[in-house]
Amino acid sequence: MTRKVNLNADMAEGFGAYDIGNDTALLDIVTSANVACGFHAGDPNVMDRVCKLAKQKGVSVGAHPGFNDLWGFGRRAMAMPAGDVERMVIYQIGALQAIAAANGMKVTHLKTHGALGNMAAVDADLAMAVARAMKAVDPSLIFLVPTGSELLNAARKAGLTYASEVFADRTYTDDGDLTPRRLPNAMVHDPAEAVERVLRMVEDQEVVSTSGKRIPAEVHSICVHGDGPTAVELATAVRNGLEGAGVAVVTLPELGLS
Amino acid sequence: MTRKVNLNADMAEGFGAYDIGNDTALLDIVTSANVACGFHAGDPNVMDRVCKLAKQKGVSVGAHPGFNDLWGFGRRAMAMPAGDVERMVIYQIGALQAIAAANGMKVTHLKTHGALGNMAAVDADLAMAVARAMKAVDPSLIFLVPTGSELLNAARKAGLTYASEVFADRTYTDDGDLTPRRLPNAMVHDPAEAVERVLRMVEDQEVVSTSGKRIPAEVHSICVHGDGPTAVELATAVRNGLEGAGVAVVTLPELGLS
Amino acid sequence: MTRKVNLNADMAEGFGAYDIGNDTALLDIVTSANVACGFHAGDPNVMDRVCKLAKQKGVSVGAHPGFNDLWGFGRRAMAMPAGDVERMVIYQIGALQAIAAANGMKVTHLKTHGALGNMAAVDADLAMAVARAMKAVDPSLIFLVPTGSELLNAARKAGLTYASEVFADRTYTDDGDLTPRRLPNAMVHDPAEAVERVLRMVEDQEVVSTSGKRIPAEVHSICVHGDGPTAVELATAVRNGLEGAGVAVVTLPELGLS
Amino acid sequence: MTRKVNLNADMAEGFGAYDIGNDTALLDIVTSANVACGFHAGDPNVMDRVCKLAKQKGVSVGAHPGFNDLWGFGRRAMAMPAGDVERMVIYQIGALQAIAAANGMKVTHLKTHGALGNMAAVDADLAMAVARAMKAVDPSLIFLVPTGSELLNAARKAGLTYASEVFADRTYTDDGDLTPRRLPNAMVHDPAEAVERVLRMVEDQEVVSTSGKRIPAEVHSICVHGDGPTAVELATAVRNGLEGAGVAVVTLPELGLS
Repeated sequence: MTRKVNLNADMAEGFGAYDIGNDTALLDIVTSANVACGFHAGDPNVMDRVCKLAKQKGVSVGAHPGFNDLWGFGRRAMAMPAGDVERMVIYQIGALQAIAAANGMKVTHLKTHGALGNMAAVDADLAMAVARAMKAVDPSLIFLVPTGSELLNAARKAGLTYASEVFADRTYTDDGDLTPRRLPNAMVHDPAEAVERVLRMVEDQEVVSTSGKRIPAEVHSICVHGDGPTAVELATAVRNGLEGAGVAVVTLPELGLS
Repeated sequence: MTRKVNLNADMAEGFGAYDIGNDTALLDIVTSANVACGFHAGDPNVMDRVCKLAKQKGVSVGAHPGFNDLWGFGRRAMAMPAGDVERMVIYQIGALQAIAAANGMKVTHLKTHGALGNMAAVDADLAMAVARAMKAVDPSLIFLVPTGSELLNAARKAGLTYASEVFADRTYTDDGDLTPRRLPNAMVHDPAEAVERVLRMVEDQEVVSTSGKRIPAEVHSICVHGDGPTAVELATAVRNGLEGAGVAVVTLPELGLS
Repeated sequence: MTRKVNLNADMAEGFGAYDIGNDTALLDIVTSANVACGFHAGDPNVMDRVCKLAKQKGVSVGAHPGFNDLWGFGRRAMAMPAGDVERMVIYQIGALQAIAAANGMKVTHLKTHGALGNMAAVDADLAMAVARAMKAVDPSLIFLVPTGSELLNAARKAGLTYASEVFADRTYTDDGDLTPRRLPNAMVHDPAEAVERVLRMVEDQEVVSTSGKRIPAEVHSICVHGDGPTAVELATAVRNGLEGAGVAVVTLPELGLS
Repeated sequence: MTRKVNLNADMAEGFGAYDIGNDTALLDIVTSANVACGFHAGDPNVMDRVCKLAKQKGVSVGAHPGFNDLWGFGRRAMAMPAGDVERMVIYQIGALQAIAAANGMKVTHLKTHGALGNMAAVDADLAMAVARAMKAVDPSLIFLVPTGSELLNAARKAGLTYASEVFADRTYTDDGDLTPRRLPNAMVHDPAEAVERVLRMVEDQEVVSTSGKRIPAEVHSICVHGDGPTAVELATAVRNGLEGAGVAVVTLPELGLS
């Protein structure tokens, strides 16, 4: 049986005159795009541009909601009641759905951004608020979640289809969490090393920690990035490495999860 | 044949800690609510509250998109390319659609807010941008437009169903335009006078100017307001006056326009 | 020796079309105004209006900086590096200084708003960031701080003049902290009770907890509020009660602290 | 007598995670920096970074206020009452003054940004609103204005010191206005041509239109840009060309205008 995997990246994170990331290059590499929805980044114009390009290139699009904090790019923890988070996520999903619809597309997944994602990954109430938002708007949305997180638990509990992701350029602790960025071995910079790690995670369905511990994990999707001097090179290597090893790189809906 | 008319008002124009207008009172009077969508006013919480109440009371909801100018409440003219306006309106429609969907409702109309509405009423390009946004997202949306405006022309040209509105508390010039607010006779403050004027407009399908000129007009909907000391009293009088005269006050979809 | 005390309230917390609080009434009661500076609330127009009125009425003005979170009215905790807080406070002080200068006034104090204040009250790093901001812009600014807080410690450490405040409408725990709002006895609603409590705090320079514990406290200023149905009545009673007891109600600079 | 001229550029136009322009490179070339103040662009962190660098390099700083329109980068015309513009400019000057003060610097000039500048250049009321804002906050501020504009007239009328600027990379019409950007000959891309044009403008104190018409103009300052592929190269050439021709390139205060 052919192994299949998804490749995802965050997109549309510019705003007005501000451009950030490398959407055009990434859309040739990934198969699913997480589209910023106007709160931490993104405006109707950049969201529309990414949808148009994604359609051309056969990339599926998902909502990438974040906190209403443009100055902090959605990376600052904010104390919000779960109900407010639920409604804020509903709003952002809808905004992208309409822009996708105007381009003859459908939003097929959701991935939380930045501090909202980090907080909800360890807070069951916040995670359920996001899951409820998805169910309320479109219960067929795929929830793209980190392995071993409250977001994954919330997806299960809410009966949402989920896809579990690992990171091509990050290492893991013995608990299966991402190594904090402040630690020296948090990042994988070498494309060859990233390819080898990703292949192992996809083929063995496990994460290997920095100490060598093997942690079983559903690996449905690989997250790559477009910022940083070598990010696009690394992402390209990962895509080529996967295809070279006979792994089909497909959109999230094409994974056939349920 | 029973004459039917719609009664509409702007809603959800608070933001966070800020409350404005009188949504709860108005939702007992009007049959369609124009819901602010987060750009000139409105946040996901207040949009959700209005949708919930509107559903309880059988009031239909529509998007009320405006410029991205909270400080100016969307009342300041802004020079935006038509394409940007189109995408900005698509975004706002979608945001409300999702909040409505989460409440088991459907957005059934759109009415432009403030400076965006004033500019598009006299600018065919802007008016068509709004019409294109509606067609792109949901071609069954009813376009709630001022009588005799470019917005009405755009609705026709785009093949959108439109409902044409007059104002219960404003007077008209010989050109069929609203008398500018700075003029002394711009406003109708007396509920009895408002009722009489509205009944005449609905029954004769015409607007009568301050000089007495009779201007034929399709009168599908009456706009009332919730702000100002006597607004709710006037709106109540208009509703009672219409029903007392045997006019059915219905939602926009119930008008059966096409 | 005549006992002197200051009476302060938060002001200018509207934004654009949104009005909140009761600035005009409060400016007849208090002697120092904490002016919102555009981040959690406040815009250049409302800041200017409050300065003009404060000048007429002999009320001293201070900066009331908060988080950059209009939707949350600055009441949501946000994770910001101390250096960012410092620069954000510098910015807000300067904005108000210029508006005050344009009215021939001087900003003479600072009081933190909402979540920024709550966080800095218990976080020495954040408290020092605010103190550094004040020293950097104008070391003669009086730091209006809660009794027994890290903000008071930061003022001392930075060598800033401080004024320590208690609340007319709140009760205290045995630790000298405000009773959390969720508890039934957190608020004082009865004007007569508020007056009696305030007089005791001013005359005995101590706070009495809900269990009766007496906690020594420097009581330089009394905070009153303008929102809520009885707030202005309570604030008026406090002012009259103080003056009736022979306590001079003065501006923060007139306290002669150093 | 040695001819002196100023070289200015817009700076601090990033926001949060967004970087734009090339402040570090420009601060080695220009002698005065126009610092965005948080409304069209700029946040307290980037404003502070530019002030620190400017101080190190002996560059004088000025406020560069714009409309409250981050999405449009202050480039969209907005209809604002002159009084609101005045207060908005006061606010922005103050914010930068405080950040400058915290770095031991003084704001010494002001230049309007984008649409605010374009509108005020031809609208005497708006231009006077900006001039009044400057006088109200600090009457010693130098008003950096385009040659032959209402901004220059307002400076004279208000009794403000002004410096009149020309553009190194733009051409002029027979009316002395900038050639609209949509026209093919609007821009000067060739560094050598820019140097020649600038030298002629500085030495002859006149602008030469695209048709060859010579228009007398006070040329106190040359505006250069940091964006675009060749901007820094052109700006460097202009600086070197001026110094090579014996023109002293100085800060705005060092021009000794009055």
